[in-house]
Order: sequence, then C-alpha cells, then structure tokens
Amino acid sequence: MTEAVTRPTLEAVAARAGVSRATVSRVVNGGDGVREPLVERVRRAVEELGYVPNQAARSLVTRRHDAVAVVIAEPETRVFADPFFALQLRGISKELTAHDNQLVLLLTEGRDDHARVGRYLAGGHVDGALVFSLHLDDALPGLIRGAGVPTVFGGRSGWSDGTPRAVYVDSDNRGGARAAVRHLVGLGRTRIAHITGALDQTSAVDRLDGFRDVMAEADPRLVVEGDFTPAGGERAMRELLDRCPDLDAVFAANDLTAAGALRVLRERGRRVPDDVAVIGFDDMLPVAEQTDPPLTTIRQDIEETGRLMARLLLRRLDPRNADDTDAAPSPGVVLPTTLVRRASA
Amino acid sequence: MTEAVTRPTLEAVAARAGVSRATVSRVVNGGDGVREPLVERVRRAVEELGYVPNQAARSLVTRRHDAVAVVIAEPETRVFADPFFALQLRGISKELTAHDNQLVLLLTEGRDDHARVGRYLAGGHVDGALVFSLHLDDALPGLIRGAGVPTVFGGRSGWSDGTPRAVYVDSDNRGGARAAVRHLVGLGRTRIAHITGALDQTSAVDRLDGFRDVMAEADPRLVVEGDFTPAGGERAMRELLDRCPDLDAVFAANDLTAAGALRVLRERGRRVPDDVAVIGFDDMLPVAEQTDPPLTTIRQDIEETGRLMARLLLRRLDPRNADDTDAAPSPGVVLPTTLVRRASA
Repeated sequence: MTEAVTRPTLEAVAARAGVSRATVSRVVNGGDGVREPLVERVRRAVEELGYVPNQAARSLVTRRHDAVAVVIAEPETRVFADPFFALQLRGISKELTAHDNQLVLLLTEGRDDHARVGRYLAGGHVDGALVFSLHLDDALPGLIRGAGVPTVFGGRSGWSDGTPRAVYVDSDNRGGARAAVRHLVGLGRTRIAHITGALDQTSAVDRLDGFRDVMAEADPRLVVEGDFTPAGGERAMRELLDRCPDLDAVFAANDLTAAGALRVLRERGRRVPDDVAVIGFDDMLPVAEQTDPPLTTIRQDIEETGRLMARLLLRRLDPRNADDTDAAPSPGVVLPTTLVRRASA
Repeated sequence: MTEAVTRPTLEAVAARAGVSRATVSRVVNGGDGVREPLVERVRRAVEELGYVPNQAARSLVTRRHDAVAVVIAEPETRVFADPFFALQLRGISKELTAHDNQLVLLLTEGRDDHARVGRYLAGGHVDGALVFSLHLDDALPGLIRGAGVPTVFGGRSGWSDGTPRAVYVDSDNRGGARAAVRHLVGLGRTRIAHITGALDQTSAVDRLDGFRDVMAEADPRLVVEGDFTPAGGERAMRELLDRCPDLDAVFAANDLTAAGALRVLRERGRRVPDDVAVIGFDDMLPVAEQTDPPLTTIRQDIEETGRLMARLLLRRLDPRNADDTDAAPSPGVVLPTTLVRRASA
C-alpha cells in the first residue's frame, strides 16, 4: 500500500532531451519560439518517459482547466435509474468532447451533500458548471453563486432572490402540455385527469399550468401529484380511479409516470385507449414504444437540451467557440415540443 | 451572457465580522486559537454573505481536495446502459460520502479521450482515483502512473510492464466459473458451451480459465467469444447452435449475456432448462430474476466491490480512515462468489 508514486519530472525530460527546463516548458505549453529540431527532441523525451505536464502549474498561467462540472440535483440512485439523465448527459458529453473539455460529473447521495459540491466548484477544479433537475428549495443556486463559476442551468429557475439572470435551456413545457390536453379534447374526452410531476420543479409546474390553460374549469379532484417515477404514477392512478371512476383520459407529466398509470389501468380492467386515453411527455425511448399499448406523448429533445447547455457554456468561457449560426445571446433558450401519436391516445 | 460573476471575498467577511483577515482565515480552516465569540461572529458573517472559502488556496496548504476521481474505461453510453457500473458506483458513492469526499466521475466518449482524463488526474483536482473496466491495451494505466495519484483498481490488472504492484479489488472469477460449470456437470450435462466476456478484460479471461479447469477436454467449437452485452449473447448463441446443435448447457460470462442467449434459445424452440440448461454470472438484479425462466447464476457482490475500493483508497490517503477490522494491507483483495439457484439450470 505504500509504494512510492513515481512521476517523471520536467527536469528528467530536460536531461533526457539535453535542453533547458525553460525549453521543455515552452514546448509543453505550445512550442512558441522553439526551433523544430529541439521541439522534436523534447517531444520524444516526453513520450519515452511518459511525462505528463503539471496541469496545476499550467492552469496558474492559463487559468483554464478544460473541464466542466455537471451537477444533477438528485441522488445518484435516481441519476442511474431515470434514462432522462443519461440522455441529457449524452448530449453534454458529445459537445464537451468535441471541444476537448473533460466532463466531470459530481455525484451525491442527496441534498446534504450539496455544500460539498459547492466547495468543489469553488475549488478551482473546473471552468464552469452545467446544473439540472433543481428543486425549489435547493441550496445549490446559492452555493453555485458563492462558488463564482460560470453556470448554465437545465430548466428555467424557480427562485427569485436577486440572483442575476441565470442562463438556461428549457423545453416548452407549458406549450407541450397544452398540445397534449388539446389532443385529448379533440378525441372527445371530457373527464381528463392530470398526474403532475414533482411540483417543486419548474418543469412540473409549467406542465400543470399548460393543463389548466386548456382545462380551466376542471374538477380539482382530477389533478393528483406524482413525482416523475413509475411508482409515483401507479400511486396517483390508483388515487384518481378511487376519486373519479368516470375519468376517460389521463395526461401524465412524463412517460415513466404514464407507464406506471398504464399498469394500474390494466390491473383495474380499464381498456386503453377505449375506456381511458393516456398521453405522456418526453418521448423517452425505448419506454414510450414498449408500454402496452405504445404511448402517445409529447416529444422533447433531451439530448439536444444537454448539447445546447454545453455549447452555451463553452461559448461563454471562450467566445471563439461561437459560430455563425449562433443566435444572439439571451438568458433563456426554450426548445419546441411536438406531439407523437401512438396507440394509447 | 456576460454578467459579472460575483463572489464574496475574505475581506468582505472580515469587514462584516469586524475582525482581521487572518482571523477569518483561521476560523475557516478550523478555528484553532480563535476565541469562541470571534468564531461565532465570523461564522455568522460567512453565512450572511454566502462566503465559500477558496479551496484552491486552502488546498495549497493542506494538499487535500477531499475529492476522488472515478474512471470507468468504457464510453459513457455503456456506463449508463450496463447496471453493473451503477452498482459499483453505488458502493463507491456511499463510502466516499460517509467520509465527506466528493465523487468526481470522469466520463468519456471512448479511448481517444483517455489522454485528457490523464491530464485531469495530473492536474491536482483529486486526491486519488478509482479505476475499473480496464482493457488489456488501454493507455490508462500508463497515464495514471504518469499522473502520480494514488489509485485503486477494480479487477486485477492484465499488464506486466514494470508497473509497481497495483492495489485492486476483484471477485473470484475463476473459482466462480468453476462452480458454475461443476453445477452443470452435476446436472448430468455433457455438451457444455461457454459464451465468454470481452477477452481483453481479465474478468473474462479468468472465467474462461475456470471453464477450462473443469472442461479441459471440451470441444473447442463449444467456446464462442461474447462481449458482456445482451446483443453479444444473442450473436454468440446463434453461432453456437449452428456449430453444435447437440449442446445441452451454456455457461454465459455474465447475466446480460445469458439474457441474450435465452432469447435466442426460445426463438429456436429450445426449452430451458429441459433441452439446454443456462447459467450466468453476477446475479445482477432485477435482470437475473426477470429472465424467462429466472436465471441460475454466480453471485458476486458488485456494490461491495465498489465500497471496498473506495475504502482501500481512503485508507491509503489517510491511515486514520483505517479501523480495527481492516486486514493487513495486500496488493489485491479477492471477494468470494456463490451459486444462486433459480429455474434456468
């Protein structure tokens, strides 16, 4: 357990190449002003010794780490259980990798660990942060402000405590919800229920608002709170059927919730869509295609949300990352949603 | 996009608390030698201003970041698709959190990104690293050696290039494989096939060796290479049935491979276990319970492997993390495996 950790030094490279330390340093940091034969000798010595430049020292000069933190305000168990996060990370990973930035995912067991995440962000280990799945009472926004790293959020923020306008990428949750409920109305359904997401998240609040935009006069018993999980969808569906056995449609706040609701409807002998039409949100694959029956839903491009978050951050860190197609900067970018028709509605 | 990033300074805290900068610094770094009323005043000012200590400066003194990197030598798509990694991370996360260390997961798109991971590890951002799912030709071991951070590996290493003995945690892959094949022999099976894992990983090589320990005389056509995925299991099972239609048992290198093999056996009209007995490796839940029929398999404690890796690293970073139950340090720790009987064999 106690073997010495050896690491080739700048001095060793200089000795091997027969040049000064300063020359090695210049080559390692880009090679400006060093003659080509010397550059070649240094590079060969670097390779032979397996030398890795001391990034801490280099960062003191460039003030860049070429690394971006990703913080998901959920316990790691949830991060790995909900494919939504994997998709958003996929978009982020592709974009960061394309710009040779390291994706640094900071995992936690829960909210008690957020102060530690704040300390890591403040510690000079990353150039910026991408933060998503915030809850209204999270301490994270304040901790991130305190850490002083440029940040882009996934989802519009729900706090209003004097924070400077936060840059965010979101989907059109309210408009998508309206489209979902209008589709059910268009099918002739009149007793339309809504299983919400976790109402301490703005995406859930916006989808509920979209439902209410169309169903302003709805029986309040037709709205039950869920939590974006299949288990939450099952629980809420049971409660809805007990309260309002005459319901003829359900708008679920996401596809996982809809999958749970479909299981309970089958268990209770309700035919979908004949007795009860069901519509979800996300178009999460393969979930939305593998439910029984396959799920009509509102598509949002989750991977693109991640990609765009990363892109906005990189552009902020270095304007050279901007390209001609980039629109004028604005605090929030809202991506459109579309209706995807399958058998459930 | 260009709002100034504000961050309360040490000076601001000192002014608010009416004390010197040095006093604030001492309180923030533990409070030694500062009178209690002053400590209280400083703490209040820290809280009111949302001050976060500059960890970079603090780290220069303590040389600790209270952060540990996790590197999985697979593309992020695989990390999120295979529940094995989520389980190992679960054990790591619990152990690091219990010691207030930040889990820093370094994700990549593939091997081309490993040099960047090496640079991040060398950059003074973490105290140590936990590395798993290495492949024989990975550059990672060399890059990690170059980075000079204490490391614990998941799985015994396959390289022999003069690297100092690496600390690792592994499961008894060879012994577990022997138990699997002996179980099939005990059921009276004689034409026993093996679908291997990815043979550039030591876990797959060790399981193949275990198979051969028992089946030294086996027909070489009964061994087909897989890759630890369900798709690889399907492909290998088709090849096996084409080559050796008389086979009566299959030992699959992991449960995901077995799940793929079971699908092909059903498709080809072979009854399991009547015509062909199938046994897996991992006891990955819920996969192993939800196959049709449920899977007999070799259980390894994946979460415990992760927990133990983290524990060995923390002990190495700070001997005070050792407790009385810790065994004497040795380069490798090998955890036992057990046979779990379900319907498939």
